[in-house]
Formats: sequence, C-alpha cells, structure tokens
Amino acid sequence: MTEAVFFARSAGLTVGEIATLTGGTPREGTDLDRRVVNAAPLDRAGPSDLSFADKPKFAAALAATAAGVCLVSPALADAAPSHVAVIVIRNPYVAFVSVERALFPDSLRPSSLVAGTGVSPGAFVHASVRLEAGVVVDPGAVIGPGAEIGAGTVIGPQAVIGPQVKIGRNCSIGPCASVTHALVGDRVIIHAGARIGQDGFGYVRGPNGHVKIPQLARVIIQNDVEIGANTTIDRGGSRDTVIGEGTKIDNLVQIGHNCIIGRQVIIVSQTGVSGSCVIEDYAVLGGQVGLADHVTVGEGAMLGARSGVIGGNIPARARWGGFPARPLREWLRGAAVLRRLSADQSGHEHIHKDDDEEQG
Amino acid sequence: MTEAVFFARSAGLTVGEIATLTGGTPREGTDLDRRVVNAAPLDRAGPSDLSFADKPKFAAALAATAAGVCLVSPALADAAPSHVAVIVIRNPYVAFVSVERALFPDSLRPSSLVAGTGVSPGAFVHASVRLEAGVVVDPGAVIGPGAEIGAGTVIGPQAVIGPQVKIGRNCSIGPCASVTHALVGDRVIIHAGARIGQDGFGYVRGPNGHVKIPQLARVIIQNDVEIGANTTIDRGGSRDTVIGEGTKIDNLVQIGHNCIIGRQVIIVSQTGVSGSCVIEDYAVLGGQVGLADHVTVGEGAMLGARSGVIGGNIPARARWGGFPARPLREWLRGAAVLRRLSADQSGHEHIHKDDDEEQG
Amino acid sequence: MTEAVFFARSAGLTVGEIATLTGGTPREGTDLDRRVVNAAPLDRAGPSDLSFADKPKFAAALAATAAGVCLVSPALADAAPSHVAVIVIRNPYVAFVSVERALFPDSLRPSSLVAGTGVSPGAFVHASVRLEAGVVVDPGAVIGPGAEIGAGTVIGPQAVIGPQVKIGRNCSIGPCASVTHALVGDRVIIHAGARIGQDGFGYVRGPNGHVKIPQLARVIIQNDVEIGANTTIDRGGSRDTVIGEGTKIDNLVQIGHNCIIGRQVIIVSQTGVSGSCVIEDYAVLGGQVGLADHVTVGEGAMLGARSGVIGGNIPARARWGGFPARPLREWLRGAAVLRRLSADQSGHEHIHKDDDEEQG
Repeated sequence: MTEAVFFARSAGLTVGEIATLTGGTPREGTDLDRRVVNAAPLDRAGPSDLSFADKPKFAAALAATAAGVCLVSPALADAAPSHVAVIVIRNPYVAFVSVERALFPDSLRPSSLVAGTGVSPGAFVHASVRLEAGVVVDPGAVIGPGAEIGAGTVIGPQAVIGPQVKIGRNCSIGPCASVTHALVGDRVIIHAGARIGQDGFGYVRGPNGHVKIPQLARVIIQNDVEIGANTTIDRGGSRDTVIGEGTKIDNLVQIGHNCIIGRQVIIVSQTGVSGSCVIEDYAVLGGQVGLADHVTVGEGAMLGARSGVIGGNIPARARWGGFPARPLREWLRGAAVLRRLSADQSGHEHIHKDDDEEQG
Repeated sequence: MTEAVFFARSAGLTVGEIATLTGGTPREGTDLDRRVVNAAPLDRAGPSDLSFADKPKFAAALAATAAGVCLVSPALADAAPSHVAVIVIRNPYVAFVSVERALFPDSLRPSSLVAGTGVSPGAFVHASVRLEAGVVVDPGAVIGPGAEIGAGTVIGPQAVIGPQVKIGRNCSIGPCASVTHALVGDRVIIHAGARIGQDGFGYVRGPNGHVKIPQLARVIIQNDVEIGANTTIDRGGSRDTVIGEGTKIDNLVQIGHNCIIGRQVIIVSQTGVSGSCVIEDYAVLGGQVGLADHVTVGEGAMLGARSGVIGGNIPARARWGGFPARPLREWLRGAAVLRRLSADQSGHEHIHKDDDEEQG
Repeated sequence: MTEAVFFARSAGLTVGEIATLTGGTPREGTDLDRRVVNAAPLDRAGPSDLSFADKPKFAAALAATAAGVCLVSPALADAAPSHVAVIVIRNPYVAFVSVERALFPDSLRPSSLVAGTGVSPGAFVHASVRLEAGVVVDPGAVIGPGAEIGAGTVIGPQAVIGPQVKIGRNCSIGPCASVTHALVGDRVIIHAGARIGQDGFGYVRGPNGHVKIPQLARVIIQNDVEIGANTTIDRGGSRDTVIGEGTKIDNLVQIGHNCIIGRQVIIVSQTGVSGSCVIEDYAVLGGQVGLADHVTVGEGAMLGARSGVIGGNIPARARWGGFPARPLREWLRGAAVLRRLSADQSGHEHIHKDDDEEQG
C-alpha cells in the first residue's frame, strides 16, 4: 500500500497479538512474535505488512505475496508460501479491517488539522458557550452563543456551530462544515463542507411571488452517524429532520426537511431525499438515487444506484431499481426487452433515418 | 410541533389579531382574546398553538385536536370541537403560513450566528469596502477591496465576498458561502456553502491539452432570490449569468455559465443547468433534472423530477418528464408499456437466463 | 460583452500584435495599429472590441457588426464590412480565445480575493509550514503543520490545507476549499468549496452496525488539473486516488476512493464516480453521469450526459449513453422505439386509463 504518510506511524502488532485481536488461529509453527506495522493488498505487501486472502480467486496472488503476515480463510491456508506467517480465520477481510483499525487508531475519525489542543487562538467561541473537557477548536472555527460541545469533540478549522446547538462527545466536525438548528449525539463524524440545519425549501404561491414558509424545527442527529463532505441536511419545517443511530451518509447527498431516517441506514453519494420521506432501519440507497416527497422506504429495503421513486412505499427488504423504480429483476428485464427491441432494428437502420435525425 | 428552541419565543397573537391578519372570520361566539404563541399540525398542537385544516380528509384529526386556535375551510367549520377557537377562511394553509411568519419574524431569513451587530472583531473587511448602516459581519467573514454591502445585510461567519462585489439591502449571506464577480439585489438569501461567481467550465482543445477559455462576465442576482446550501452558480464567460427576481433555487444545484433564469422560477435540489440555457419566468424544474446546454424552458413549463432534456425547447406551460424528456403523459405511458412488456415475460423467465446473467 | 469590471482593464492589443499572436493574416489594407481592449460576440462588440466569425451562419451578424477587429475564417473574409479590421485565420474561435487570454491574463486562474501579498494577518500558518517565494495566503486561511506550498501559489480566504499536504507552484486554492491527505502538482486550480482528501465511504457490517474501514491512502493531483466548486474527491482506502495531468473536473462532482483518473480527462458537473474506477486518458464524462464501482472507461471514450454504467468496461473511443449505458446509437434507437410504442397508443388512451391512474 501507499505509505501512509498522513497517519501516525504504528508501533505495530505481533502475530500473537493479531490472533488474539481477531480470534484467528496461527498456522502450526508460525512465529508468534513476528511484527507488522502496516497493511496492504497481497500484491503490494512487503515483509512488514499484513495482508489477507478470502476467496479462491486470490490463491495465486497469495502464493506470490511478499507479505509478512496474512489472514486467510480455511480453504486457502495451504496456498500461502512458507515465508508468510498465516493466521486462519473464517472472515479474513473483517479481521483485516479490525487490525487496520488497531494499527491506525487516528484513522477512525478526523483529528485536529493543526495538531491543536483546547481552543486555538484564531477561533471565535462566544462567551456563553459550554465546552466540556478535552474539546479541541481549530483556528477559524466559530461557535455561537449558548452552544454546548461534549468532551473529546474536535471542531475543525472554519467550522461554524450555530447558537444553541448541542454536540455530543467524541465527535469530529470537519473543516468548513456548518451546523445550525441541530442537536447532535456522540461519536458523530461530519465531514468537510457538510451543511446541517439550514432552511428547508418551502414556499406558498402569493400574489407577488413565492412566499417563504417558516422552517421552525430542527435537525436531530443520533449517535455514531457519519455524514459526507458537502452533504446538505435541511432542518424541519413542521417536524424535526432525524438521522438515526449508526446511519452513514456519503458525500453530496441532499436530505430534505422533515425526513425521518432510521438506524444503520446507508445512503450513497449524490442521492436526493425529498421532504417528509421516511427511510426505515437498515435500508440501503445506492448512489444518485432520488425519492419524491413523502416516500417511505421499508426496513432493510435496497434501492439500486440511480433509481428514482416517484411516490408510494418501497416494501421492507425489497430490492428495487430503475426510474420509475420497480422491483430490480423487473427493471433489468425491461432494460433487456428494450435492448432487444432496438437491437432488432439495427439491420434496418435506413428505415429509421428520420428518427435518428430528430434525435440529433 | 417540536418546540422551536432556535427561534425567539413569540409574544403571540390573539384570535382577533389573526382574523385581521388573514382576513378570516371567527366562528360565532369565539373568544377573540385567546392567544397562541406557536404553530403545529393538528395532531401535535396544544392549547397555546395555532393549527389548520383545509381538506375533508383532516376532519377526524380536527375533531380530535387539542389546538387552541384553528384556521379551517368553510366546509370544515362544524367539524372542530367546541374548545377550539375557529377562524373560517378560504385557504387555511396560506393563512397559517402568514401567521407563522408573523409569529416568528426571525425565521424569514438567517440572522447573525453570533448575535452580532456591526463588524465582529474576527472579520476581515478591506479598508476600501463600503458598508451601509446596520450591516452585520460575523467573525471570520472576509470582504475584499471595493465591495459594497447594503443596509441591513448580514454576512455570516466564514463567508467570502470578493473584490468589487455589490450586495443590496437586507440580504443574508450564509456561513461559508462565497460570492465573487457578482452583483446581488435586495432581500437575497444565499445559504451556507453556496458558490457564486467562480469560473465557468470552458476549454478549447490545444496541442498540449485543454486550454482554459477566460470567463469574463458576471453573475447578476436580482431581488428576492433564494439560493440553497452548497449550490454553485458559475459566472458568465461571454455574457452574464442572470438569476431573475423572486426565483428560488434549492440545495446542490448547478447553474452553468451564461444561463438566463427568469423571474419566479423554482429549481429543486440537485438539478443541473448546463451553460447558456434560458429558463423563462414561472418555470418549475423538479429535483435532479438535467438540461443540456443551450436548452430553452418556456414560461411556466414544468419539468418533472429527474427529467433530462438533451436539446431544444420545452414549450411554455408544458409538463415534461423522463429521459430523454417528452411530454409527461407520453413518458408515463412509455414507462407503462415497458412495464407490461417486461411483466409479460416473467412467466418465461428461464428463457431469458442469459440476459439476466449478462446484466449481473 | 458585459463590461468586465472584475478583471484588470487591459492595455489592449493592436491588429499587428493579434496577427502575430494568432498567426492570422490581416486583410489587405488593414490598419495594423488599430487597438482593441476587450472581446465580445459580433452582436455586442463595439469599436474597441475584438470579435470572431467562424461559420457561414454568422455571415449576416458579421456584416452588421460594429466590432473594431474581427478574426474570420477564409470563407467569411469578404463578408466583413469595410470599417472592420479583419484578420483571416483557419480557426477563428481558438484564435479568439488565445487573444482573450492575452488581454486578460488575470482571468487564467483565481487571484487573491483581497489583493493580498504574502501571508495576510488574519491567516493561520503553522510554524512548521514551508512557503516558497511569492506564496499568497489570504485572510482566514489555515495551513497545518508540515505543509509545503510552492512559489506563486495563492491560498484563498478560509481555505484549509491539512498537515503534511504538499502543493506545487502557481496553484490557486479557492475560498473555503479544503485539501487534506493530498499531494498536489503545479498550476492546479481548485475552486471554492472543493473537498479534497476526506475519508472514503467504506464500512464492514459488524454485530453492532457499520464499522468504518480505515482510509489510509492519499489523493494525488497531477499538474494542470482544474477542480470545480464544491466537488468532492475522497482519499484512497488501500491505494491512492489519482487525478491525472491536465484533467478538468466541473462543479459538484464526486470521485470515490481509489479511483485512477487519467490525463486530459473531462468530467462535467454532478457526475459521480464510485470507488476504484479507472478512467483512461482523454475520456469525456458528460454531466450527471454515474459509474458503479470498479468500472473502467477506456481511452478517449465518451459517456453522454446522464448515462449510468452499472458495471464492466467502456471500450476505448466508444460513445455510450443511457441507463444502463449502451452504445449511444443503440440507446437513442431504444428511446425512439419506446416513443413509438407509447405514441401508438395515444389514440386509444381510454384503454389504458388504469395504468395512468396508478402512475398518478
């Protein structure tokens, strides 16, 4: 792997420590004191790196690897060369991730970008703000009156925390992010440039144009949520916008006012959730999905990338796709039908010349 | 409704005042001195809240409400319980919004996020900047040489106003927004992280790669425009990009260089308008719409969410949808045809096994 | 053209200088000392403006223009009125752009927004930062420990440069942009609010919810890249995210972790590139395109606006479109088939009333 110059160099872990951490079983005769300090794919790993192999298709790469230590599935245990310290485990990738997390604890959430502690001189913290112990406020951050920030939370440079906002413990608020009209739980990560709490998009038509509907509610962000860079989450108009515990939202996502997002939901980049939608626990929305307003996505449902839901409910545990969205198999079948219908005509292209021209 | 902790508590309005404000008629015998201080939907309203009921389907909720005061349509006047102070009016929702606006005047546009007045100590205002009376500049804001800011305008924390930019009166520029190469009218709201005035995307192919075309024009934003969070509006290359009076633009929208957007247009979140498009007055673009360059959208036309216009003109007052966009009814009919064609085959799924596999 | 109030007034160029710069040939008898100071389209140009005419359809506009100097293709040389100083050249538009670039050199990349030099008082530059000669750091910018900035680079107001980041020479980092975990080449332009280097979106499912996968690699941005406003580029998880030399990326684009983007690629606004994609040299991605993860786009391939690639490879030099993406002509033919199938039924609309209702 590329040398991780941006993270503190790890003291490393021994084979014995990795086996204990992951619950894996070292291959007989393995040196339990061998140490790795980094992690890498099989083809780029060297003697001081940990790697992993979890599928039969990786057998050849495993046989050729220069990795010092390797987490492998039982079926691959004999495919590793003798110079590799092998740890056998049922799910090598999950174990690999857990070792990476132990090797690079400062990668688990963004830190101060100036290696700061306490409130940096260049930050503005209103006199009425309440900061618990160990809060770090980077230069340029602005915290408005009455805000409260929990212990261990890092407020990045240029981040803006609005008046009366409450942020829990061990959160990271990224550079240039803004958080207003919001209550935020513990261990929440908000990445750079995310916009939390601005007005929702609501107007009534008046005689002289569009009249703004007051947006009087809040954004509630529960524990362990992660919100991507430049994502926007509007505060509620008449009821709170809620992001449930453990939900992960990627970059450039739009969440409209009054939405209720459940727990452990995954929302991939550039998806747009219109106002007053409900997304139940464990649902997964692929990238560039769009939901019309008042749509409900059932528990554990999965919307394929770029699907567009124009109304109604997606049943729990369903897999839908396309636009207008329908069950995924039906949508793929429809695409195949259309492909066949249009391919049939490719031998008669001259007949449809007019059509082609009109599509210019 | 969720208690509006983020807005100044209202002094409230009496039934008499609400009737005067809205032009509604109190039900006979109603106590004109009863006072509400907040607003809420029927099912969450209490004795100090205003609510509304405008459709027959809300009759049951109206009968069960605990609201102190309710704006109701004539047909529902008798459905309200006797403990509710009823005001009868033709359009209860519009009236409700107007009362909300009177109760919470500070919700009508973003205020200083540090309860500031004048220029905060942590702001940078170039010596040549001209600020009218009552301008508020929050900490961290930066205003370049020659800029002019009109009376009553609020420049949020970390906002950046470029050199020579003119901003009118009673505007709100959100936190972390940037405005360069632009002239901005009165009562304009620009939300957090919006980007106004950067270079448009234009290159010619040269022998050594793409050569940047100078982007020499401006962004003109007329009165009463609202621009959403993290939206981007590029300045013109050869003619100004113009956003017309009263137009409202949601979050994460892209407006390319040289576009002319008319008055009272609505553009919903994540829509992309390519360069040199013309969008005429009163047009509505749903969410995630895309326009190719040089497209014209006629006056009052409506593009359904996720429609994609690959060229040409959308006629005035037309309703179009789909991709490539076509009249909405035709597009929906096409989707129905495709659904039928593919559903027909679901009983013969084994025949198309190859297709399914190839779509993986 | 709109008067370019936001750029330094040009000293202008004479016909002789323009002929030398572009390699064009002045029409016989043309005054080589005539001077222009600005550039404009034919219909808006005046005596001190340069204009151009490159296609027969512009003959009438050329005949009517008030431009002082005009670059015209050989076929149009005689269509210009006698009061215009004509320079004949094979590619008038490319020549026009090169003259614009010479007239307005400060339009070629963003300058300091406060007309600053050196490090502005309101900026935070860590003591360990290494700045080469002529670096400009605007007020509010924050530069973390160990960062290095090359000669002539401008760091805009509120921009954030993370620890250990290296930025080359003559770059412009826009207002409110953030750059962390990244190495940036020379002459790179990063526009306002772009987010470079934050965590990619990667989790494994654990017993208590989604577990963050460490994102340990970097973003590498090669020379002459331009990155649009509010675009997001995540750093690599297991290998670096790379943006190749001369590649231009528009606003609001998402580039996922581990992507390898080649040289001279064009990516238009709001496109999303999922993790671990490879986009080879000279490829062009239209606006609002989406790529699933691990997709490869071959050299010089072109993806039409809004196309969505659900997997696999796009062949080199192919032109694809639609969703799921397929060769552009096939996709357009499919759209035509569907239009015909649904149009056929428009005479029998009453038969399908149920369908229409269900799509409400």
